Amino acid sequence: MSIAQQQQTPQSYVAATPEPAVMRAIENLSYEWARSIDENRLEDLAGLLTEQCDYKIASRFNTDRGLPLAIVHIRSRSQMRDRITSLRLANIYESHHFRHMVSGVQVIGKTTEGWEVRANYSVIRTMEHNGAMEIFSCGQYRDEVVFEGQTPLLRRRHVLFDSRAIATLLAYPL
Amino acid sequence: MSIAQQQQTPQSYVAATPEPAVMRAIENLSYEWARSIDENRLEDLAGLLTEQCDYKIASRFNTDRGLPLAIVHIRSRSQMRDRITSLRLANIYESHHFRHMVSGVQVIGKTTEGWEVRANYSVIRTMEHNGAMEIFSCGQYRDEVVFEGQTPLLRRRHVLFDSRAIATLLAYPL
Amino acid sequence: MSIAQQQQTPQSYVAATPEPAVMRAIENLSYEWARSIDENRLEDLAGLLTEQCDYKIASRFNTDRGLPLAIVHIRSRSQMRDRITSLRLANIYESHHFRHMVSGVQVIGKTTEGWEVRANYSVIRTMEHNGAMEIFSCGQYRDEVVFEGQTPLLRRRHVLFDSRAIATLLAYPL
Repeated sequence: MSIAQQQQTPQSYVAATPEPAVMRAIENLSYEWARSIDENRLEDLAGLLTEQCDYKIASRFNTDRGLPLAIVHIRSRSQMRDRITSLRLANIYESHHFRHMVSGVQVIGKTTEGWEVRANYSVIRTMEHNGAMEIFSCGQYRDEVVFEGQTPLLRRRHVLFDSRAIATLLAYPL
Repeated sequence: MSIAQQQQTPQSYVAATPEPAVMRAIENLSYEWARSIDENRLEDLAGLLTEQCDYKIASRFNTDRGLPLAIVHIRSRSQMRDRITSLRLANIYESHHFRHMVSGVQVIGKTTEGWEVRANYSVIRTMEHNGAMEIFSCGQYRDEVVFEGQTPLLRRRHVLFDSRAIATLLAYPL
Repeated sequence: MSIAQQQQTPQSYVAATPEPAVMRAIENLSYEWARSIDENRLEDLAGLLTEQCDYKIASRFNTDRGLPLAIVHIRSRSQMRDRITSLRLANIYESHHFRHMVSGVQVIGKTTEGWEVRANYSVIRTMEHNGAMEIFSCGQYRDEVVFEGQTPLLRRRHVLFDSRAIATLLAYPL
């Protein structure tokens, strides 16, 4: 199943946009995710997911071919908290910062309880010791967003990265 | 005529913003264009243009000097379809993906039948065979957007790229 | 004081979003700033600041540690005009263009008279003589936006760049 077949046609994209406040909240959720990572508030990410969730990072190459391998797969808030605790206490990596660019947040359809959302992202990594910057990753977010009261949450976020592998260690979430 | 002279002053930019739903639709059109390319649904681009249109890719250097040379100039949906068919069937190029970042969509004025729109773009190219990423192009979209019913369409999209030339082949539209 | 401590928690971000027209105007201000630089209309920047203002460019490294050193610090429109005049008349630098990507504009709170705003930015620099592109800077805008009538203005813009130093000369504002 190709990427194209998983997506709807341009004709249908026009109708999918929800009312302004909902659209704003969905955008804001994506921006808050990015800012939580970039400001090194990784502990806040769990609160942007639903209790049971599906956060996955997998390559475009694998996804296009229906190959299931993901490099990260998290299914609950607790698992995300666990991962961040591990990152803070146990993992060893060269100190660096991420900076997310999120572009083109689009609601492309309704799901049973929420919204099907797409966005492009790129992440620039800056090394702490010498300030060297490079494009660390780019790709697409494939999200399902649901609302608990006024609060938008990610029930699903699939991060599809364009390159075939992640150079060196992936410490922070994308 | 310099770039500055083609643009309006900051005083007037405030008044130009259309009502929220129109603004959203215009943004969404730009995002849909980007996603159509990035998801390799190039056949869908023609449907985002008006039947008679003006899609042009030219350098900032030439445009600033009033030099007419463009590296792509398409004047109708049919011509766009023709180009995409050629790309699918005849062109030979190393397999790669594009990822668009579109930023700062602004409506800067009304035209007789539509809206004068600007946005910045950058495109990261990832090579299929080794996953190498680089900034392939960046620049500005200079669009006229018109509505057919509820559907926004590009009557004009001038892609002004900042570099003086495109490295290697330009296979996909920008 | 760490970056995390300066920011609010995800719970509070949901409530902060202002009404749609205000949000749009705030976004548009950030985009207009970027476009003024990218279109080389640097003279227009002063008009996007309040008469007395606080425009500062400082590294994330220094800011995180409470170190006051900034590489640019401007406190009024006049000072900005002065700087741009100097750039046009006196400074010598290799000709180049900037292209801003601005992402994730978020209102994160109210101030006494305006709005506390965050956004991520990245700037791609293209050299005029050979078209070479590179990521010149990325980081975060930390703004206070106030309204004079319908017009949003920057009372404060702190540009926090991720790298520890700016390579070569910083000619244009970020």
